[in-house]
Amino acid sequence: MTHVAVMGTGSWGTAFSGVLSDAGCTVTMWARREEMAEQINAGCNLEYMPDLRLPETVRATTDPVAACKGADIVVLAVPSQTLRSNLAEWGHAIPGGADVVSLMKGVELGTTKRMSEVIAEVARVDPKRIVILSGPNLAPEIAARQPAASVIACVDMAGADRVAAACATPTFRPYTSTDVVGAEVCGATKNVVGLAVGMAEGMGFGDNTKATIITRGLAETTRLGLALGAEPETFLGLAGVGDLIATCMSPLSRNHRFGVRLGQGMAVDEVIAVTRQTSEGVKSCESILKLAQDHGVEMPIVEQVVAVVRDGHSAKDIGPRLMSRDLKPEKS
Amino acid sequence: MTHVAVMGTGSWGTAFSGVLSDAGCTVTMWARREEMAEQINAGCNLEYMPDLRLPETVRATTDPVAACKGADIVVLAVPSQTLRSNLAEWGHAIPGGADVVSLMKGVELGTTKRMSEVIAEVARVDPKRIVILSGPNLAPEIAARQPAASVIACVDMAGADRVAAACATPTFRPYTSTDVVGAEVCGATKNVVGLAVGMAEGMGFGDNTKATIITRGLAETTRLGLALGAEPETFLGLAGVGDLIATCMSPLSRNHRFGVRLGQGMAVDEVIAVTRQTSEGVKSCESILKLAQDHGVEMPIVEQVVAVVRDGHSAKDIGPRLMSRDLKPEKS
Repeated sequence: MTHVAVMGTGSWGTAFSGVLSDAGCTVTMWARREEMAEQINAGCNLEYMPDLRLPETVRATTDPVAACKGADIVVLAVPSQTLRSNLAEWGHAIPGGADVVSLMKGVELGTTKRMSEVIAEVARVDPKRIVILSGPNLAPEIAARQPAASVIACVDMAGADRVAAACATPTFRPYTSTDVVGAEVCGATKNVVGLAVGMAEGMGFGDNTKATIITRGLAETTRLGLALGAEPETFLGLAGVGDLIATCMSPLSRNHRFGVRLGQGMAVDEVIAVTRQTSEGVKSCESILKLAQDHGVEMPIVEQVVAVVRDGHSAKDIGPRLMSRDLKPEKS
Repeated sequence: MTHVAVMGTGSWGTAFSGVLSDAGCTVTMWARREEMAEQINAGCNLEYMPDLRLPETVRATTDPVAACKGADIVVLAVPSQTLRSNLAEWGHAIPGGADVVSLMKGVELGTTKRMSEVIAEVARVDPKRIVILSGPNLAPEIAARQPAASVIACVDMAGADRVAAACATPTFRPYTSTDVVGAEVCGATKNVVGLAVGMAEGMGFGDNTKATIITRGLAETTRLGLALGAEPETFLGLAGVGDLIATCMSPLSRNHRFGVRLGQGMAVDEVIAVTRQTSEGVKSCESILKLAQDHGVEMPIVEQVVAVVRDGHSAKDIGPRLMSRDLKPEKS
């Protein structure tokens, strides 16, 4: 029987623990707070996933070393900007032979490193054992066992196969890939595009406009990915266009909802104050833009989101720019 | 001043007449029925686009020869399966030097010909003057002057440029392309995928499932397009993923709405009886499947839609098949 440590108790980490349990794994979740561990051990993460009943095969502890002990697979599900400090604290506890799965979507501020790069650097995990999971996987729907599919990427296909086998269920279908860079770029950028589409919606724009912004967002995501060595097919697949659609169009998407409030005229701080949540897109847009600039890639949509999130422009100021370009051949 | 004949008075033909008028063209619409011509001359197509006020520069007539007279551009906006008979009737009236724009989305039953092929064959229009317009352009939003963008494709870029110049407005942005085949394949297939996604929604599936079906629909659309000689970039662009998103996710999409009712358990005839409308996807799914089979291309989603529309299976029967495939690498 496969034993999995899930490090983090946010909504996706919790929903994915449910998937792993459905797939026959035993799971130990690591919670930062005692109260959260108790909730999970009582069968429910009331704070982040109140509708999901967790079975006995999912346990929780506040001790990260105990959580990792004996794990065949360690799933990292902490906020992306805290990955480095988390791994510095307990990365040594990851068993040498374990596969390490990243559920995180982001690019590190300052270093512009992808999550897999931070994992390799800080926890010294062999890239052949670093696995990225990315796809159209809105956590509440996964928890409700709605049919979904996802990409499991590892530079070594055997690593992807092992993780896919551990999490496949009748309603959760993993598809394997070796394009780690592509899966990570898609995962990080879609949140920023989701903010832009949410802003457009909040400003009253309709589905034509939103579909156009998503299409352009896919184009700039692809440009960045190719510059970093990703495979073009990934952007046409579940981790690319699939996840973009889910994140940009669904009211269940946190980035989308955050963007809607920005579009309605709220400032970033106000949205955080009202919702008591931030969004990965807000936290990662700046590092994604820097990564793009470092590689000479233009990302006009990410740029506009940064103008709002970092520079304090209002969504109204940047609205027209999300759509405006001169008449020209589509490819250029 | 550019004079445009718009042949057809459906919702998209009417909304696009408004765009042309906004762009400074004079427009003569051809209506099959006298009553419709009168409505339009009174300033409003009450039946198909009641919220759009048409200006004096848009006139209508029931005489197709009079409509085409002196036109620099002839826009064809009749139901796709009636194009051949329409052109047989009045195709000779299209001025020799006019650009001919297809707004139609479909593949001809029996012949499996694309609209541009039917135009070239029946009306003997030089392919350098046959132009395809395709993109995320839900007609009610275009009529409301919501910002939108579209692809204008012609084998001769000069033809695309002429039409783009004639219809560009501050809210309608055309992007030119030479990939006629790609634009037409995208336009036809998206309606069928829209039906499938609507069915999934009608059966109660959520946004992860819908995003996955759209992603797979894009993959099979791309396979068909490439087999017919299209350029891969088109499928990543506005006519491809852009229009798929609008058609599959928007409640304004007729194909989507039709699919939802099928998913809720109604038969095709019942939906037609209740809504008094059919959908392009219903009319073209069979010819698209035949076109694919003739070129050895697998289109599992189109196949499932045909099973419902032609063979009378219920959406419930095919639901699981829209999502099910074995674990395998994503690319295969």
